[in-house]
Amino acid sequence: MRIAGIPYRSVWVDPADGWSVRIFDQTRLPWAVEILRLTDEEQVVHAIRSMQVRGAPLIGAVAAYGLALALRRDPASLEAAAEMLGRTRPTAVNLRWALERMLARLRNTPLPERAAAAYAEAALICDEDVAMNEAIGRHGLPLIEEAAARKGGGRVNILTHCNAGWIATVDWGTALSPIYRAHDAGIPVHVWVDETRPRNQGAALTAWELGAHGVPHTVVADNAGGHLMQRGEVDLVIVGTDRVTRRGDVANKIGTYLKALAAKDNGVPFWVALPSPTLDTRIADGVAEIPIEERGASEVTEATGLLPDGTVATVRVAAAGSPAANPAFDVTPARLVTGLITERGRCEASEAGLSSLFPERFA
Amino acid sequence: MRIAGIPYRSVWVDPADGWSVRIFDQTRLPWAVEILRLTDEEQVVHAIRSMQVRGAPLIGAVAAYGLALALRRDPASLEAAAEMLGRTRPTAVNLRWALERMLARLRNTPLPERAAAAYAEAALICDEDVAMNEAIGRHGLPLIEEAAARKGGGRVNILTHCNAGWIATVDWGTALSPIYRAHDAGIPVHVWVDETRPRNQGAALTAWELGAHGVPHTVVADNAGGHLMQRGEVDLVIVGTDRVTRRGDVANKIGTYLKALAAKDNGVPFWVALPSPTLDTRIADGVAEIPIEERGASEVTEATGLLPDGTVATVRVAAAGSPAANPAFDVTPARLVTGLITERGRCEASEAGLSSLFPERFA
Repeated sequence: MRIAGIPYRSVWVDPADGWSVRIFDQTRLPWAVEILRLTDEEQVVHAIRSMQVRGAPLIGAVAAYGLALALRRDPASLEAAAEMLGRTRPTAVNLRWALERMLARLRNTPLPERAAAAYAEAALICDEDVAMNEAIGRHGLPLIEEAAARKGGGRVNILTHCNAGWIATVDWGTALSPIYRAHDAGIPVHVWVDETRPRNQGAALTAWELGAHGVPHTVVADNAGGHLMQRGEVDLVIVGTDRVTRRGDVANKIGTYLKALAAKDNGVPFWVALPSPTLDTRIADGVAEIPIEERGASEVTEATGLLPDGTVATVRVAAAGSPAANPAFDVTPARLVTGLITERGRCEASEAGLSSLFPERFA
Repeated sequence: MRIAGIPYRSVWVDPADGWSVRIFDQTRLPWAVEILRLTDEEQVVHAIRSMQVRGAPLIGAVAAYGLALALRRDPASLEAAAEMLGRTRPTAVNLRWALERMLARLRNTPLPERAAAAYAEAALICDEDVAMNEAIGRHGLPLIEEAAARKGGGRVNILTHCNAGWIATVDWGTALSPIYRAHDAGIPVHVWVDETRPRNQGAALTAWELGAHGVPHTVVADNAGGHLMQRGEVDLVIVGTDRVTRRGDVANKIGTYLKALAAKDNGVPFWVALPSPTLDTRIADGVAEIPIEERGASEVTEATGLLPDGTVATVRVAAAGSPAANPAFDVTPARLVTGLITERGRCEASEAGLSSLFPERFA
């Protein structure tokens, strides 16, 4: 998508040298648009772990380039580099999916050809991600068109949580892809943007990218969604996901489950957008089986933002000496999910629904 | 309760002059313990509106003293001052209750005696608040004792939202009163403290007062409560309230409704602690009838805390130019409330339950 009129992807190979990897430092957004240059796999590990890149699809794509950077230095480092990159984030399934795809492609490639093959495969992963997200936008669009029709052309209010926009993917986004498409088609959409504490990806990143594209939106505290639904001010919820189980349970940013409960209680459709690499058919029960990353307490006890003088600062918001816990994801059971939006169309959040669209994954 | 070993109430008449009113500046807590001196009703209006005092019971008590300060200057200003004080916060019913009680007591009092009578009545409101909250602690304690027995003496995990502690009342608190009592009785309690964006009363105030009293606690993002309940890490929810309708609907800090939904979904008891002035028998349907205060957007787009150098600063956490909405309360329907803890005992959140304890209010 565009920043100040210039089209970008969220990861690319530097055209000047043909091998280094470029990303936006998302820990600096929205305060500053800074492009980083990654030159080895250790920088990629740091970028993923420190959330300079985040968003399940983007993590997978950047990890694939991390492997390419490793093989450029040492073609024999394939397994060790994949192992190291795989340990960076435990919840997102795309990371493992991308690394396994790279391993399968490269294990039997002669050492002298590995680096070039890795760059080609990583580029393919990126192009496929863009194509999938574009398709998610097409398949999600009718949900917004129908809501607009129900409202007689009135504003369609869509609530989203965290950031599942273009900067969480290679381009387009997942949850935001139908929204960008609807907006571009002239449907009057308005997005309730959950702040998404503790890291504020909603207030910082989703608000930033919607604003840059000109999509009307309003930031709200994570606490507000239930009230807005109770008052009829939400027509539709669309969120992204870090992992969907074979029966349709959805792991996503902490707090998603609370919004799904509120949507159910108020008859608001609750849709989850996912490219198929996010589907993990190896597990069924999301609550029991998906490992939930526990991140550092300081994310909860602190908040980062801009001081009046324009410098970025971190302030402690919790009382001195109080400990904090920071589970980063939760699991929304399939029973609370109206449906899934994938690159092959929409389906019920169930094994029947998913296997109808992706029979080869359930064979 | 105590700060550094010294017992305090959260509002008192200055013993040095016998008429000015002392409060903690709660916008400065937990960063600094600063005691303000209020000398006229306009300062009281400012203190309530700017949330230097907050918490429904405390607002009522301080407003009562505001009337006393007004009458000290002009005994004929009764109705005008009550009108001005009553406009400060729209949601909490205690404010209106306290002012109406003062009006009823003072309207027929001769002008020369009004100020003294107002001080006496305000002191009575304070003493009654303390007695009610102490009784709420007694009636809530068995819930924690039963949870401790179920866990064979293991740690009882209680989740609370916002601040319904002693600094939200004149003393003891409402939701925290049973917790203080259980802790003092040697029951191993641990409190999950919801941060409570956008104003962070949980992370800042509840964590501070629990820490000062030595109650084990952990601050979590508002998003985390559903996940904790799903994993069996919450035995009990206790929250305060700003208004309870005759049929048991509960207005409380924005986000309470989401926790009630999660509690219901996971079979976790969800209790609401209230002194009876918080009961508003004039209305039945909380969602339809309780006005919800919309506060300034900057509370959402900003966060206030301590810089590493120890100074208090406010940072902008939302993307530049993004608007925000800030509904301050939501309504939890009675069907999601396990029960109410009042100064007269516990009851079902229903007209039958409430009228069994407070028949005179339903006459």
